[in-house]
Amino acid sequence: MQFNRPTLLLDRAKCMSNIGFMAEKASRHKVFFRPHFKTHQSAEIGQWFRDFGVSCITVSSVTMAKYFAVHGWDDITIAIPANLAEMTDINLLAGKINLNLLVESNEVVEFLAANLHHQAGIFVKVDAGYHRTGIDVEQHDTILGISHLISTKRLLNFKGLVVHNGHTYHPSPAATGQQKEAIKTIHDQSLARLNRLKSFLQANGVEPLLSVGDTPAMTLTENFEGIGEIRPGNFVFYDLMQQKLGVCGYDQIAVAMACPVVATHPGRLEVVIYGGAVHLSKESVEDENGNKIFGEVVWLNEKGWSAPLEQTFVRSLSQEHGIIKTTPEFFHQFRPGMFVGILPVHSCLTNSLMPWIKTLNGQIIQTMNLFPGP
Amino acid sequence: MQFNRPTLLLDRAKCMSNIGFMAEKASRHKVFFRPHFKTHQSAEIGQWFRDFGVSCITVSSVTMAKYFAVHGWDDITIAIPANLAEMTDINLLAGKINLNLLVESNEVVEFLAANLHHQAGIFVKVDAGYHRTGIDVEQHDTILGISHLISTKRLLNFKGLVVHNGHTYHPSPAATGQQKEAIKTIHDQSLARLNRLKSFLQANGVEPLLSVGDTPAMTLTENFEGIGEIRPGNFVFYDLMQQKLGVCGYDQIAVAMACPVVATHPGRLEVVIYGGAVHLSKESVEDENGNKIFGEVVWLNEKGWSAPLEQTFVRSLSQEHGIIKTTPEFFHQFRPGMFVGILPVHSCLTNSLMPWIKTLNGQIIQTMNLFPGP
Repeated sequence: MQFNRPTLLLDRAKCMSNIGFMAEKASRHKVFFRPHFKTHQSAEIGQWFRDFGVSCITVSSVTMAKYFAVHGWDDITIAIPANLAEMTDINLLAGKINLNLLVESNEVVEFLAANLHHQAGIFVKVDAGYHRTGIDVEQHDTILGISHLISTKRLLNFKGLVVHNGHTYHPSPAATGQQKEAIKTIHDQSLARLNRLKSFLQANGVEPLLSVGDTPAMTLTENFEGIGEIRPGNFVFYDLMQQKLGVCGYDQIAVAMACPVVATHPGRLEVVIYGGAVHLSKESVEDENGNKIFGEVVWLNEKGWSAPLEQTFVRSLSQEHGIIKTTPEFFHQFRPGMFVGILPVHSCLTNSLMPWIKTLNGQIIQTMNLFPGP
Repeated sequence: MQFNRPTLLLDRAKCMSNIGFMAEKASRHKVFFRPHFKTHQSAEIGQWFRDFGVSCITVSSVTMAKYFAVHGWDDITIAIPANLAEMTDINLLAGKINLNLLVESNEVVEFLAANLHHQAGIFVKVDAGYHRTGIDVEQHDTILGISHLISTKRLLNFKGLVVHNGHTYHPSPAATGQQKEAIKTIHDQSLARLNRLKSFLQANGVEPLLSVGDTPAMTLTENFEGIGEIRPGNFVFYDLMQQKLGVCGYDQIAVAMACPVVATHPGRLEVVIYGGAVHLSKESVEDENGNKIFGEVVWLNEKGWSAPLEQTFVRSLSQEHGIIKTTPEFFHQFRPGMFVGILPVHSCLTNSLMPWIKTLNGQIIQTMNLFPGP
C-alpha cells in the first residue's frame, strides 16, 4: 500500500458486512431501510447499498441531498429541520425527486406551503428524550395539530414521525458492560412513548409512518414494534465510540487513518504522528481505563490492520500533530518514517474531513467534500 | 449579504489590524516575522501579509508548503518534525525554494543527509515545557551533538532552534484575570531556559537562531530577549479560546460562522441552528460561568456582527446541528430562516473545514482545502 501522508483506509469487506448486517435485520423485522448517508458521504459507497436493495436514503443537508440526487438517488429524506434559507435548492430537488422534509412548528409548515412549488413529503420531528430537536413526544395534541395542518396543504404530503434517539450514545450511569442493556432500555422506553403517540394519532384519523434512527439501538435491539422505517448511518463504518458503548467489536470498525510517525520520545513513552484534528476531528471518548482518548493504534499489514495495541492510545491532538501514549513493549517498534493506523473515535466526522478514502486494494473513493463550491 | 447555508464570514478590517499589530510588534522588537499560515491556509490572505513586509512563512505540512510555493512563497519553514515518507515532495520543494525542516533526532538527520538532493535549512525542535515534540531544553549536550551532526552534512544548513510553547494555552491554575500574567510567566521561564541553552551552544561554537511561536505569548509579552524570529499564526483571526485566555478582545475576532436558525424550543430556551461539528469543529472551551461552550452568538448586521449576546452560547454540536442556549430576553428574537453568527472556539480548525470564506463585502476567498487531490 502506497501513501505518504495521513490517509483514511477502508476495509471494504468489513464495510459490506456491516451494510449486510443492517439490511438483513431490517428485512427480518419487515421495516423499511432508509440508511443515513452522512457517515460515508460517497456516491461510490452509496452504490454498494444498492446490492442490498436500498433505493431510498437519508441525508443531513440540502447540499448532501443535491450530491446524491446528482448521483442517481431519487428518494431522499433530509433529516434536519428544514432550512428555509435554501428554498431555491429545495424546490429544484422537489421538482426532480421524491424529497422528504422535517418540520417541528406550524410556522415552518406555513412557510413551506407558501414557498414550495412541487410536492414534498413532510415528517414531523419528534423528541423522545434526546432533547436536540423535535416536538416532545408527550405533546399529543400539538403533534396532532401540526399533522392536521400539513394535511390541509396542497403540496405537502404528511408522511409520519421522525425520531433520533441520540441519547443512546450516553447510556449513563450504566457501568461498562451494562451499557448494551441501558441502550436497549432507552430504545424500549422511547418506543413505548412513540407507540402511544401513534395510537393517539390513529384514533384521530392520522396514520403516521414511524421512522427511527440511531445506530446503537438499531444494532442492538430486536424490538421494532410499530416502527415502519429505520435510518441508521454510522454502522457502515462503526468507530471507537460505538465500540466503547458495546455496540460493535473492534473487528467491525471498517476505517483506520494511516499516519506517519515523525518522532519518538522514550522518556515519556510517546510517539508523535503527523495526523491531527484536521484529519481525525477533536472528538474524544473515554476508554476502559478512564483515559480521554482521540483514537486507538493498530499496526498496518498486508491484509489491512491488526487488533489495537493494548494500553496504547492517542492522548492528544493539535491541528496536524497527534501524540500516542504507549508501553515499553510497543515503544521500540515505532520508528520515524513508518506508518501506523489510528481507529477513529467518530468515523462520521473523520470521514467528513477527507476528500477521498483508499480501499485496502488501493482504490481511491471520492466523497462529497467540497460539493458544490460557493 | 447573501448566503443560504453555514458560511464563514471574515471581517477584513479586523484581520488587517491583527496582522498589523503583530508585524509592528516584531519590527519594534527587531525580531524576524515568519507568520504561521496554518490558520488561514489561503493564498489570498497570504498576500495581505506582503503589505506588511512579510516574505518568509511557516506552515504545518508538506502539502501546505507546496500550496504556498505554488502561490509564490519562496522561503518556507515546515514546523512539524520532518515526515520522511514525503521525501519526494520535500526534494521537489528544496530544489525550488528556501525550505527549512525540523529535526529532533540524529536518526532523522542521517536520513535527511542521505536522501536530500538539494540544500535545506535545518532547525532543531526544542521542548521548553509543552511536551508535545522536541528535545528537552535542558539536554544541552544532546542538542549540541545534533547541531554539530547537522553541520557535518553537506546539504544540511544548521539554522537554529524552533520552540512552540503550546502550554501558554493552559496557564492553569491561574484564576481568570490572572491568566495574562501566567502566560507571560510561562514565556519568561521558557525564554530563560532557551537563552541558557543558546549561551551554551554559542560557548561551543554554534550560533543558533532562536525561533518561537505561540500567539498567546507573542501577543502579550514585551520580552523578546535572545529571540531572532517569531512564528505566531492564530492572531490573524483570533478566536474564543484566545479571548477566554485574555489574549484578545471580542472585537479582535475576525471570523464568524453565519448559520441559519432551523428550530426554536421555548420550553428550554434553546435554538437549533444548521451548523455543526463539520463547520465549527468539536473544539470547546470553558466560559466565564464554567459552561463548556462550542461558540458564542452574535447578531449579523450590515457592518458585520454585534458584540456577543450575554449568557448565550452553543452548548452542543453534532455533525450538522448546533444547539444555542439563550435567555428569555433574547429567545424571542430567534426565528427559523434567519441567520446568526457564531464566534468560533478555535479559528484554525473552523477555517480548515471551509473551502472558502466570505468577506463582509461579499468577496469569496479560497483556502487550500483539498489541495492537492489524491
